[in-house]
Amino acid sequence: MATEMGHATLLITAITQHDREALEHTLWQLAEQGELAATLEQLSPDQLRQLADLLGDETLSDILSELEPDEAASVLERLGSAEAADVLEAMAPDDAADVLAQLAPENASQILVAMEPLEAEELKSLLAYPPDSAGGRMTPAFVALSPDIRVDQAIAALRTLAQAAETIYYVYVTDEHGHLLGVVSMRDLVLSPPDRTVGEIMETDIVKVQATADQEEAARLLTSEGLIALPVVDDQNRLLGIITADDVADILEQEVTEDIERLGGSQPLDIPYMKASPILLWRKRVGWLLLLFIAEMYTGTVLRHFQREIEQVVALSFFVPLLIGTGGNAGSQVVTTLVRAMALEKIGLRDIPRIIPKEFATAMLLGAVMALAAFARAEILQVGTVVALTVAIAIWGIVLWAVTVASVLPLVLRRLGIDPAVVSSPFIATLVDGTGLVIYFTVARVMLGLQ
Amino acid sequence: MATEMGHATLLITAITQHDREALEHTLWQLAEQGELAATLEQLSPDQLRQLADLLGDETLSDILSELEPDEAASVLERLGSAEAADVLEAMAPDDAADVLAQLAPENASQILVAMEPLEAEELKSLLAYPPDSAGGRMTPAFVALSPDIRVDQAIAALRTLAQAAETIYYVYVTDEHGHLLGVVSMRDLVLSPPDRTVGEIMETDIVKVQATADQEEAARLLTSEGLIALPVVDDQNRLLGIITADDVADILEQEVTEDIERLGGSQPLDIPYMKASPILLWRKRVGWLLLLFIAEMYTGTVLRHFQREIEQVVALSFFVPLLIGTGGNAGSQVVTTLVRAMALEKIGLRDIPRIIPKEFATAMLLGAVMALAAFARAEILQVGTVVALTVAIAIWGIVLWAVTVASVLPLVLRRLGIDPAVVSSPFIATLVDGTGLVIYFTVARVMLGLQ
Repeated sequence: MATEMGHATLLITAITQHDREALEHTLWQLAEQGELAATLEQLSPDQLRQLADLLGDETLSDILSELEPDEAASVLERLGSAEAADVLEAMAPDDAADVLAQLAPENASQILVAMEPLEAEELKSLLAYPPDSAGGRMTPAFVALSPDIRVDQAIAALRTLAQAAETIYYVYVTDEHGHLLGVVSMRDLVLSPPDRTVGEIMETDIVKVQATADQEEAARLLTSEGLIALPVVDDQNRLLGIITADDVADILEQEVTEDIERLGGSQPLDIPYMKASPILLWRKRVGWLLLLFIAEMYTGTVLRHFQREIEQVVALSFFVPLLIGTGGNAGSQVVTTLVRAMALEKIGLRDIPRIIPKEFATAMLLGAVMALAAFARAEILQVGTVVALTVAIAIWGIVLWAVTVASVLPLVLRRLGIDPAVVSSPFIATLVDGTGLVIYFTVARVMLGLQ
Repeated sequence: MATEMGHATLLITAITQHDREALEHTLWQLAEQGELAATLEQLSPDQLRQLADLLGDETLSDILSELEPDEAASVLERLGSAEAADVLEAMAPDDAADVLAQLAPENASQILVAMEPLEAEELKSLLAYPPDSAGGRMTPAFVALSPDIRVDQAIAALRTLAQAAETIYYVYVTDEHGHLLGVVSMRDLVLSPPDRTVGEIMETDIVKVQATADQEEAARLLTSEGLIALPVVDDQNRLLGIITADDVADILEQEVTEDIERLGGSQPLDIPYMKASPILLWRKRVGWLLLLFIAEMYTGTVLRHFQREIEQVVALSFFVPLLIGTGGNAGSQVVTTLVRAMALEKIGLRDIPRIIPKEFATAMLLGAVMALAAFARAEILQVGTVVALTVAIAIWGIVLWAVTVASVLPLVLRRLGIDPAVVSSPFIATLVDGTGLVIYFTVARVMLGLQ
């Protein structure tokens, strides 16, 4: 807090001295340190407006683009709709749409009313698609030309359009109704005779994506086809926007974060961790925690069932956490590897006949090592060699069982049409806990001759 | 197997009938189905050589680029070094280097000897850097010009270089010793007066990366700067190659897979799962499994320490897996979320004062819900209300403890310079198991008045 106050004082000094250069420098520095949003919150609405006047819309929109959309939205809310409209107009349309989506609906529509009608229309069309769809990601800042334009005219046109467009490396060719006909790369334009028409040299076998498609599909196409930009069309094949290659890392990052959070046994947060309130964290976690608790309740029933054995040989209970813990760990290793390989589409159902024997062989080796370790541990605890042998045999069986369950389950779920990412580390550990105990006490009954 | 034999028969038929079109069609289809490597293995060296003759080096190199480097390497090994050299020459140099790195050293050098000296030199320089470094990722297929070339000459030069270069959207400007002076985008070339020199219009504030730098740094720069290609230089600032934007997804994918495998409690595999032998899987997993086993051994000591309490109230042992399992699950939820946020550099040490209270508040809420659930479960097992209350209080304490450990530990490790990704779900579960038992039996002693 103390430093944020200090940063705010720096800004206020620059504002009162009308020192534009110092102000801009300080703002960029704060953005780099991740302190910008917190510092801007320290300013009064009046100071914020003076800051906006001093910087100008262009620079302010550049700086706000560095913030998370919700942070930028909270700054705009305090600026007032007229000024907010000017700043949003200066922003890249896809970024502006992300910020607008974070505003309360009444504030957002006030700002849209204050904007130039054309730009407001553009933003509204972007807001019509969910943020994780191709339509929610796209920018309408593409270059589209008619097919009868000549190559030299096209290059001349690019000179005037270069500022406004997100990329000029691809030029899209559309008919008068906006239907996508083809694409010409700047490479092709430069390398073609100047008097040919765009329609003659365009590529008509176009890689494109529907606006309603998942953003992940767009990222995959951009990557696998090695494209710089991907056109987004509606169901009538009308060109709505483009998604550029620099969005790919963002999209992949977001999707992977969701997968990892699921693997840890909670629902994806959907917003950056630092923005999540305890109530939100609680909501995303409590469901799985309760479900796993209910699944784990079975262990109590198993242990009560074997109450007589525990009473006769209390030492058996010493190894319960060790045995089921090792089972859970062995299962977790398999599940994370397989779920990731499935997410990358490196393995699928057809690989089951090769996966199961491979995992089984691995589990035999792992189980043997763990059996030796468990035997040694039991001997150190001085529980007698028969109990030690029981523990060693049980851990081998539990590792084999855990690895088998963990390698079959994700594939079976995929078969049933369920996302295999639900098989988290906690999930497999829970599943193995109760069944592992049954293995353990069954071995104990036989080995110790218990009734 | 049966289908692979069928696929192989299709290929052999096309080869003996000299039907180039059918052959190419079948090969691409197999590549799409992921069956190409397995099918090519069915062919005899003789059939393979006939296939290569029929297709030509260009097409064969295109098709082999679809395979994993080790699969392509095994095909080349069976082709013989002269033919292999021709195919590698036709491949993109960075792909060719990846394939060469998979060959036995004596085979690789035989093939290099059979190649054109210039191309062999190029490959050797790529092989000099580790595969996960910027130098290992780069391609030498860039366009470099001298600063005194005119813009119109540069555009003319691009026409002739367009085929060989990986990208012509950036042209690099170097002096006679290959030192990187500046960069000109094709956008700038097209938009500049034709009689200016490249040296006049070039951007000299160049984003670049050292060849020895981690490939992840290159991916981050490409993304954050929105570049289509990134120049790679040696410690003398000599331009060695470029990394293009379509490598970003590959690099991120690889790094994320490593993180996920670590989170699951094993060492990263470094090769695709389907290529990993049981021995390799065992090697990558057994270390952590043993380490976790040793850490978990502590639970046996704790339970033996509380042997008297267990003997007096055997019902206490029924809840051991449930309590420590819930603690592990709660910890796993926190750890995966935080480790991922740290990998994305969204949180750091300076956020500790905000993370701990947030997680503590979340844990209070989660613990309360779990305490209610645990009380209900204990009552259903009919173990008496005092034991039920003990279990409820203990689970609350264990959830609070697990969440606190899980939120502090990754940050402390980062502080100590250790990669926080070692704090896997199994790791945190293990850590919480022993300490959770101490909490449980301490509560039991007080509640049940045990000595």
